[in-house]
Amino acid sequence: MGQDNGRVDADPSMRWNGWGDPDKAKGLPLAVRTLLPLLLGRIRKPEPAVELAQVRVTPSTLSDDDLVVFRNAVGPQHVDVTAEGRIRHAGGRSTPDLLRRRQREQDVPDAVIRPANHDEVRACLDVAGRRGVAVIPFGGGTSVVGALDPERGDQHAVVSLDLRRLSGLIRLDEISGEAVLAAGTTGPEAESLLAAHGLELGHYPQSFRYATIGGFAAARSSGQNSAGNGRFDTMVTGIRVATPTGDIELGRSPGSAAGPDLIRVFLGSEGIFGVITEVRVRVHPIPRERVFESWSFPDFAAGAAGLRSVAQQGAGPTVIRLSDEAETAVSLAQVGKIGKALAKGASVVTVYEGEGIAERRARTGALLSAAGGTSAGEGAAEEWLQGRFDGPYLRDSLLDAGVFCETLETATTWSNLLELRTAVESALKEGFAEAGARSYVMCHVSHIYPTGASLYFTVLAGIRADPLAVWGPVKSRVNDAILANGGTISHHHAVGRDHAAWLEQEIGDTGIRILRAIKRELDPADILNPGAVISVERTR
Amino acid sequence: MGQDNGRVDADPSMRWNGWGDPDKAKGLPLAVRTLLPLLLGRIRKPEPAVELAQVRVTPSTLSDDDLVVFRNAVGPQHVDVTAEGRIRHAGGRSTPDLLRRRQREQDVPDAVIRPANHDEVRACLDVAGRRGVAVIPFGGGTSVVGALDPERGDQHAVVSLDLRRLSGLIRLDEISGEAVLAAGTTGPEAESLLAAHGLELGHYPQSFRYATIGGFAAARSSGQNSAGNGRFDTMVTGIRVATPTGDIELGRSPGSAAGPDLIRVFLGSEGIFGVITEVRVRVHPIPRERVFESWSFPDFAAGAAGLRSVAQQGAGPTVIRLSDEAETAVSLAQVGKIGKALAKGASVVTVYEGEGIAERRARTGALLSAAGGTSAGEGAAEEWLQGRFDGPYLRDSLLDAGVFCETLETATTWSNLLELRTAVESALKEGFAEAGARSYVMCHVSHIYPTGASLYFTVLAGIRADPLAVWGPVKSRVNDAILANGGTISHHHAVGRDHAAWLEQEIGDTGIRILRAIKRELDPADILNPGAVISVERTR
Repeated sequence: MGQDNGRVDADPSMRWNGWGDPDKAKGLPLAVRTLLPLLLGRIRKPEPAVELAQVRVTPSTLSDDDLVVFRNAVGPQHVDVTAEGRIRHAGGRSTPDLLRRRQREQDVPDAVIRPANHDEVRACLDVAGRRGVAVIPFGGGTSVVGALDPERGDQHAVVSLDLRRLSGLIRLDEISGEAVLAAGTTGPEAESLLAAHGLELGHYPQSFRYATIGGFAAARSSGQNSAGNGRFDTMVTGIRVATPTGDIELGRSPGSAAGPDLIRVFLGSEGIFGVITEVRVRVHPIPRERVFESWSFPDFAAGAAGLRSVAQQGAGPTVIRLSDEAETAVSLAQVGKIGKALAKGASVVTVYEGEGIAERRARTGALLSAAGGTSAGEGAAEEWLQGRFDGPYLRDSLLDAGVFCETLETATTWSNLLELRTAVESALKEGFAEAGARSYVMCHVSHIYPTGASLYFTVLAGIRADPLAVWGPVKSRVNDAILANGGTISHHHAVGRDHAAWLEQEIGDTGIRILRAIKRELDPADILNPGAVISVERTR
Repeated sequence: MGQDNGRVDADPSMRWNGWGDPDKAKGLPLAVRTLLPLLLGRIRKPEPAVELAQVRVTPSTLSDDDLVVFRNAVGPQHVDVTAEGRIRHAGGRSTPDLLRRRQREQDVPDAVIRPANHDEVRACLDVAGRRGVAVIPFGGGTSVVGALDPERGDQHAVVSLDLRRLSGLIRLDEISGEAVLAAGTTGPEAESLLAAHGLELGHYPQSFRYATIGGFAAARSSGQNSAGNGRFDTMVTGIRVATPTGDIELGRSPGSAAGPDLIRVFLGSEGIFGVITEVRVRVHPIPRERVFESWSFPDFAAGAAGLRSVAQQGAGPTVIRLSDEAETAVSLAQVGKIGKALAKGASVVTVYEGEGIAERRARTGALLSAAGGTSAGEGAAEEWLQGRFDGPYLRDSLLDAGVFCETLETATTWSNLLELRTAVESALKEGFAEAGARSYVMCHVSHIYPTGASLYFTVLAGIRADPLAVWGPVKSRVNDAILANGGTISHHHAVGRDHAAWLEQEIGDTGIRILRAIKRELDPADILNPGAVISVERTR
């Protein structure tokens, strides 16, 4: 477990076929084991996952000449052609990714290349372009949207460009509150480097322990403290990018009208336009104080109305999240006594850090009370903070027990929030029901804006057939429902390959043409992450 | 004068060769007339400006067939080929623009076309593309960077596309706090439409009375209330754009990770990619209360340190501005008794609106005091609010008196703020001195961010030669100094044609290639605003 002040150490050792540190994996809590058959019916234990050594990987299509030039670019010890290295870079951490990691045959990149700095990234792109090798930029490996699939497009081979050697604090401007971090710096590494100066970035997505600064930027991440610190987009004040056809440095000033904000072309580009090598971010002093308060609401709608007031009146919590009735019942049931007492209605967690905590808490509390909320003390909120990075471990235990578990998310305006939630929930339940599976859907709101909020769904299902075959159509149905009901295809998980077809609907033909035009200009040979964001068919 | 609660009525009747309502033009205050010879030496009265009827305009190169198709697109009464109509659309309101309006020969567009809605804009672009006619989108006509010059590029003619008939509140979502406004709605029209629902947009740039919602978006405007309400960029939650090759609607949710934020491709595009026809903006309840407080600092550096604390600790004023010693002395000297008492050191104006005013004022005040500021009551701040849209009237009077007057602006990080201010001030003074002109340079900070702030300069000069010939090289020298010293070429005036060469330096070759690639895709015939943002040479 992390340090219990909520700041955590670096821990890059990701389990090859599951989440996080293998030593932290744990069985299902008794409460969950008791609940599951009631919710999902009898569940069959799946075949045991294969061992790493048993996996048969696709043969490498890199020639010896290809390997020589990559070795020249980064040094021979940083070109990894072992089966284990390639398997560890075969994909991200969506449930389909993890199910594929349980299979005997696996599609993997032909090598893993580890450049040390911007110039080596530049050299790798030059080499890849000349040799016709596709490049999948790889940060923490935590994508849950297929952004790391070893797709080669029209190239003869594909390599994973592991960026974690680009690590460290490159520059710090304490007066302006800006830090330049190398793109491969992980969340905990960044916080530790900044903490030495009394500073914090304050970006805590669930992937925090593994994901990298460059990945946060490339995927438009949003963290648990977004109510106070903003989404990662808003923290970025500059970037340095190596594209196949030239470098670019952007971000001269905190506000500008010097043409379109080109930083925003690269935020969300998921490695299809270039490789982000440095990110300048806004930082702030480490908060000296942290205050917790949880709230209970009669139902999700009342809680959502409370969150809307808080967002629109700028009451100022650092964290605010609302769990619906289903999530409140299940997730609080496992965390202990305090949770159980609250496991009715919809629960809200608030955390306050930084300046003016007392006023901000008072203002937030007044608005939540006015919306029908009842303060429930600090215990449950504090427990949430302790366990906030551990959800993915639970998913591994569920998969081991044969329970399908996946998350997905969207966002919309406040006026459309309840309708969109219902539509997504129905699509999930009906989709699984058609496949003969019982399911349990939970939802929370964890990112609020004056004009709307995110919706994050966790679904459990008792699938008797091949879960990959069942989930595909259900996920498609949910994506259709999101777009038909006014949501965005992703609030913070990004597009990858899994959402590319729906992005096309969201931004339309003209939008895709803009992305394609930039892609053609910066990466004319289409070596960078083929098929991510824009499907390979649309790129051609 | 506008209503004295700071909200003002619509007033679209712009003086043809100066700023604003001709009836509101006023002579120079006695204090200024006394001061000018002391600052700038003896000034010769210029030739009187020509009358509108005396102006000789460039002959129209539109054929009768061209006119027929435009008349079919928008109705014959909305195609204006009169000399007056064309002169009124010949440029924006920079000082060079106004000096050119004083000349007998003027370069003007070949016609003014006034579409009524999105579909008519679409039809105009189709017609213009087919007939080889360049299109200059025209909102309030307040550009100060040459974005409205009637440049035809490779086309045989050029029309001004006046968008002010696209006016009105198209949709209002009171729950989400979002309004969709037609792009040609002016600032006062928008506020008046919203006020009927108890709502405010709260965007008050100096161009407020004339400029349009679409113009604010296209030029990345920032208003006087930016400390509280954010720059216009941050108010936009959606846009609808007609491009020469297709329409696009963007902005499904308040936060998204669905690829790069393409709204940002059009914000700051200044009409080169498409014509923004609708803008969805975040709105909020009209503040019930407004509190003023002015402050006095020993010098600019101390004031800047105060503003930095306020920005970095999120103290929350709605307006905060710092005038340097030169601006404090001159601008406060004219506003009356209260001003005179403060005309030493550097002055700060703060205004608080909305929720939690008492706490925000107390927090801000504590930080300004700690930085060496002394509270100076509400009077001067209230006087600033009364006169805040009147600066451009004063410029007209100065030009009539033979005094050159222009403004320019940039932004940078806090750590670089004083250095950049010195560099710009030196470039201005040295540039004028080399041309044998005495000058007086004033500076203020009016937009703050956690990581930096804007710098806005007003320069007066006693030029004996042709002011256009003198100003050109001085302005180039200043732009060079801005880029050499870490500033952005514009914080909120945008790029237009005047800054295009420097934008190229700011975003580099790869940045320009990105813009050009989008331009080629959306406007392959290059009919839209040729030479704005990207110079005509770079587009080819």
